[in-house]
Amino acid sequence: MDYIIYLVLAASVVALGFAYYFYKSMLGEDEGTDLMKKIALHVRKGAMAYLKQQYKVVIIVFIILAVIFAVMAYFNLQNEWVWFAFLTGGFFSGLAGFFGMKTATYASARTANAARKSLNDGLKVAFRSGAVMGLTVVGLALLDISLWFIILTSFTDYDMIAITTTMLTFGMGASTQALFARVGGGIYTKAADVGADLVGKTEYNIPEDDPRNPATIADNVGDNVGDVAGMGADLYESYAGSILATAALGAAAFARSAADGMQLKAIFAPMLIAAVGVLLSVIGIFLVRTKEDTNMKQLLGALSRGTNTSSILIAIATFFILWGLGIENWLGISFSVVVGLLAGVIIGKFTEYYTSQSYRPTKKVAESANTGPATVIISGLGLGMISTAVPVITIGVAIILAYLCAIGFDVNNFLSAENLSLGLYGIGIAAVGMLSTLGITLATDAYGPIADNAGGNAEMSGLGAEVRKRTDALDALGNTTAATGKGFAIGSAALTALALLASYVEEIKIALVRLAENASNGLAQVTDTIALSVEQIEASSLIDFMEYYQVNLMNPKVLVGVFIGAMMSFLFCGLTMNAVGRAAQKMVEEVRRQFREIKGILEGKAEPDYARCVGISTKGAQQEMLFPSLLAIVTPIVVGVVFGVAGVLGLLIGGLSTGFVLAVFMANAGGAWDNAKKYIEEGNHGGKGSEQHKATVVGDTVGDPFKDTAGPSLNILIKLMSMVSIVMAGLTVSFTLI
Amino acid sequence: MDYIIYLVLAASVVALGFAYYFYKSMLGEDEGTDLMKKIALHVRKGAMAYLKQQYKVVIIVFIILAVIFAVMAYFNLQNEWVWFAFLTGGFFSGLAGFFGMKTATYASARTANAARKSLNDGLKVAFRSGAVMGLTVVGLALLDISLWFIILTSFTDYDMIAITTTMLTFGMGASTQALFARVGGGIYTKAADVGADLVGKTEYNIPEDDPRNPATIADNVGDNVGDVAGMGADLYESYAGSILATAALGAAAFARSAADGMQLKAIFAPMLIAAVGVLLSVIGIFLVRTKEDTNMKQLLGALSRGTNTSSILIAIATFFILWGLGIENWLGISFSVVVGLLAGVIIGKFTEYYTSQSYRPTKKVAESANTGPATVIISGLGLGMISTAVPVITIGVAIILAYLCAIGFDVNNFLSAENLSLGLYGIGIAAVGMLSTLGITLATDAYGPIADNAGGNAEMSGLGAEVRKRTDALDALGNTTAATGKGFAIGSAALTALALLASYVEEIKIALVRLAENASNGLAQVTDTIALSVEQIEASSLIDFMEYYQVNLMNPKVLVGVFIGAMMSFLFCGLTMNAVGRAAQKMVEEVRRQFREIKGILEGKAEPDYARCVGISTKGAQQEMLFPSLLAIVTPIVVGVVFGVAGVLGLLIGGLSTGFVLAVFMANAGGAWDNAKKYIEEGNHGGKGSEQHKATVVGDTVGDPFKDTAGPSLNILIKLMSMVSIVMAGLTVSFTLI
Repeated sequence: MDYIIYLVLAASVVALGFAYYFYKSMLGEDEGTDLMKKIALHVRKGAMAYLKQQYKVVIIVFIILAVIFAVMAYFNLQNEWVWFAFLTGGFFSGLAGFFGMKTATYASARTANAARKSLNDGLKVAFRSGAVMGLTVVGLALLDISLWFIILTSFTDYDMIAITTTMLTFGMGASTQALFARVGGGIYTKAADVGADLVGKTEYNIPEDDPRNPATIADNVGDNVGDVAGMGADLYESYAGSILATAALGAAAFARSAADGMQLKAIFAPMLIAAVGVLLSVIGIFLVRTKEDTNMKQLLGALSRGTNTSSILIAIATFFILWGLGIENWLGISFSVVVGLLAGVIIGKFTEYYTSQSYRPTKKVAESANTGPATVIISGLGLGMISTAVPVITIGVAIILAYLCAIGFDVNNFLSAENLSLGLYGIGIAAVGMLSTLGITLATDAYGPIADNAGGNAEMSGLGAEVRKRTDALDALGNTTAATGKGFAIGSAALTALALLASYVEEIKIALVRLAENASNGLAQVTDTIALSVEQIEASSLIDFMEYYQVNLMNPKVLVGVFIGAMMSFLFCGLTMNAVGRAAQKMVEEVRRQFREIKGILEGKAEPDYARCVGISTKGAQQEMLFPSLLAIVTPIVVGVVFGVAGVLGLLIGGLSTGFVLAVFMANAGGAWDNAKKYIEEGNHGGKGSEQHKATVVGDTVGDPFKDTAGPSLNILIKLMSMVSIVMAGLTVSFTLI
Repeated sequence: MDYIIYLVLAASVVALGFAYYFYKSMLGEDEGTDLMKKIALHVRKGAMAYLKQQYKVVIIVFIILAVIFAVMAYFNLQNEWVWFAFLTGGFFSGLAGFFGMKTATYASARTANAARKSLNDGLKVAFRSGAVMGLTVVGLALLDISLWFIILTSFTDYDMIAITTTMLTFGMGASTQALFARVGGGIYTKAADVGADLVGKTEYNIPEDDPRNPATIADNVGDNVGDVAGMGADLYESYAGSILATAALGAAAFARSAADGMQLKAIFAPMLIAAVGVLLSVIGIFLVRTKEDTNMKQLLGALSRGTNTSSILIAIATFFILWGLGIENWLGISFSVVVGLLAGVIIGKFTEYYTSQSYRPTKKVAESANTGPATVIISGLGLGMISTAVPVITIGVAIILAYLCAIGFDVNNFLSAENLSLGLYGIGIAAVGMLSTLGITLATDAYGPIADNAGGNAEMSGLGAEVRKRTDALDALGNTTAATGKGFAIGSAALTALALLASYVEEIKIALVRLAENASNGLAQVTDTIALSVEQIEASSLIDFMEYYQVNLMNPKVLVGVFIGAMMSFLFCGLTMNAVGRAAQKMVEEVRRQFREIKGILEGKAEPDYARCVGISTKGAQQEMLFPSLLAIVTPIVVGVVFGVAGVLGLLIGGLSTGFVLAVFMANAGGAWDNAKKYIEEGNHGGKGSEQHKATVVGDTVGDPFKDTAGPSLNILIKLMSMVSIVMAGLTVSFTLI
């Protein structure tokens, strides 16, 4: 049986191998003129400098947290592997971001140069570079997972439940890193973007990416640190998190049948689906080729062919994998996986419907530009709010269906102890299904910012309108795939977070066992009135713990937790939005200053001080990312200490539900504003330069922090709060105020 | 003991008597010049025409729902009083709105005329007219409550639990009416407001309320139907709802000691506190007087003196009332009331902090106007999101404290069956405390739109800058008190909704008893595996029902319910926001058409076609209010049928938590944008007419549907969903899909 983990390891090596192959083949392309090389170098240096600076700050946070975990281990509130697992999770997540960004910064000039030949050449370079990112993320995640599994089974005598929950802590490392990357990178990129636009486009009427704009390098650096490195870390976290949470649920659900290897099978199932998904993704990536002289629709078709083929293949393969693995109820669980896949596709399609200018909703937002910026904002907010209905209902149906499939539609015992564990496992594996083709979906996602940067390079190098038009086409295509990608990220986050809830209760169980083992009377004090022995704790089901801790909807502690969780999502978004606003304002002032003080800058005779703008974004991002991120870590701890297990579960549910809806709202409103602007730029309602266009620029600017800073950070926030609660369970069971 | 209900009845008569007295004394004031009278007549006719139209639509909905309830009673799914109670709740709520609006439309010209003499005279007329509204609302609510209590105790043999839960259904009538009034009125007023501003102010640069603007009468009508009639119905619902929910909780909490009259005392306690609050409000209203030649600060001082005195007196009186009533643990419960009062004050103060231009946050929003409308929107949204923290934490602390006080800090048995009922009663009565001085706080709130309309009248009648300045000052003062008032409404809604959760479970109990009594085997099938006899049902506590229906946070039905609830708040806001956008767009087109087609309109030589604009707003509001309102009614029913009790409780919690936070966000963002504009109009950052000013006008326009349509409707949505669930409990327990 154990050999399966080596298959997973092998898949990770394959993924990383192909990533390296695509990377090398991209490097083999010509980087273009000297000016192009110079600009790319500028951006690359800026991006690397930022990442270095960011990692410096993050490393301090990681060390502090690792020390806390070590101290907790010393006081027997956690096991001794946690601090180390936490560090590696952060390290690998950072690595994924680093490799992705490195690739992207080498690829942009090469994409621009290839686009000089044809649209198709541009697509190939950009997409293959995106594939580097996609495969690096899944490869590193599977590497981390398989290595840790091998280490823990070889060097400890932990049972499978302890092993899988320990591995969850490397998920916490990944989440922490991801939150910093998303928030920091998001603030960076949007401060630069908003700052560059507000002065350059609006006040001086110079085009986007014009080299005369002092913030233009910072803007291009931002695309890399926010949309590439941030996204890489984000999806590394989502991907690893879903697999780890499901493995932990599997260990718990099949604990009773550990002897016949069923438990191990349940742990391996999500890993194996992910591993096969990697191979199918590689096949999909190779399918993305177009003939010469293709139009946009054919391009999109080429991408869709790749992702659709991978999705269909993994749906079929799942049945064989689970049947071959010989897991109990393999048919039902396979359907759970398919439910997840389907839910992802539905959410992706509806996201496209609500955010693409090909459909009515975004056209309506563009139309509202006829009555000025206020109605653009109102209609965009309205659209975003309404667009939450379908994803939420889809996820709701997916949750119930994945659950029912996994329990074989045993409705009469819907929530029996056994069915609950099995059903939750079904929900977790649905998330794995949704993300199983991440290798290719992330490739289609990550190539967007590369194309965006290629456009910047083309503009600054003066490559002419034809090339710019091609990179713009690639960029627009990227917007559509990015919207779909965000749908997957948000949807999978909701499912994974649900799975993590159950893991939290499992960890509470482990912490109680530790408590009982250390107590002189052999009993762990669960609540004021309940004390249990190790045997009693181990015999208790998830539902039993709900009753011990009175985690029901009449308990004021639960209700207050839910309130705080709902508020946290808003507070977090508000803080990041304001951070962008503040940093952007500084950028605006600096750009205005340069236009005012550096003579000849507007005529192109003097070079602006790019570095200073890069510095402002860097500093702004570093200062502003700490507070919201630390809030996400501290809140679950405080709620745990004050309100105990019931309060924490309330907090997580409140944060999850509101955060999920808020994230969909922000992502879709932002996407719609962006494309409403594009729709007008295509010549509708007055076209470029009209009052209507200006009104949609306002919408787009508001949408920037919505869709690229606050919105995507929410997914991570939700899961990080769960992970922190899990790691801190030992503290919560030992000490609670009320 | 029973005589107490007559004291409540007497208090209601006193309130209505004073309301009539103030109404008559207002009517005795001079209405000013013929032109003033004519304009006031225009507005009054428009407002009455709208209300008539609205009631016509609403009455159909009421009849349909009443028939459904009657059919349910026929099939023994509800008792036979429900349909009638439902109708009276709607009727009284409508009456409160009607009287308030009638007063307001008579008062505006008189206020303008009084303001010709002095600021102080203007304040007096406006405030006394606001007092008519405040006292009518509380008077009618207490009248309805006491009459129903007398009817049900006289004509039925129901026990107190059945009586109090039946009375809750008149709360549902009030909520339904209020939702239509808020949504319809909100769409009306904001469509007119946004439409008038976008063309008049922005495109033609004519001042607000200029008679040349065709939408100006519609705008003034809107203030009356939205801000007066809508608010009246809204607060009638909040006030009656909090008393009724607490009475129902009292009946349940003290059911075991029905014999010694303790149950009756617990039912009377919230009514008596409210009744005494009415009398103290009247005293407070008489305290609001100023010397001649006062400035703004003294005006605010005068209002605060009135409300503060009432609040302090009711806090002290509560101890005597509950001690005199001889209710068990009177001291603890009195402190619960004080907790509610204090929470209201804290939320009010922080609302002021976040939305008044005297403080940093709103000043920052104004400052962001230097970089254009986009940053105004971003910073306003950021402010709104951040501003949710304090109210949510305050309500969280209030929930826990009110609970703990009521159970005498018996922390070790925090959630015992007995303590839970008692603690929930404490939470309910905290809401009653928060709203006990509604008679005067609503007066300070309702006078705002009257002053606003007086300004409109002054402008249109050409009374000159001095008078306009005075009415503007009154209006600005009204903005501050309105913000505080909204804080109370939202905070009390959160507490009341929590109380309604418990009432829902009580109603489930009643429905199960009905089921068991009708079953041939004498058993009610609670779930697939649980069947209980009448005795067993009656012996079950709230917590027992949580276990029967598995209403815990591991149950996927609960989780999906929470998701849907969270989504509902967003969807509802999105629908109403879009409705305002659509209606406003039609208004803009009509106003533009009139400016284009009616010659001489801009020179003041030809009269615009006011009626047509009134018609557009009316039609828009009527068309648009139905869908979101019906959604609020249908969703809990559907969720109940599909997911059962667990799903409904999840829905209610999800809706409550997200709706609460979203409501605070929208109200505060809207308030801050409004006052940021005012701050710039006071001469800061470029002053009136500058680019900065235009940027804040965009913010204000976006804020309009935030703070006056979507935001305030959320309070009602939350409670209406609870009320519908309660009334439909019979259906839910009889039939559930999964």
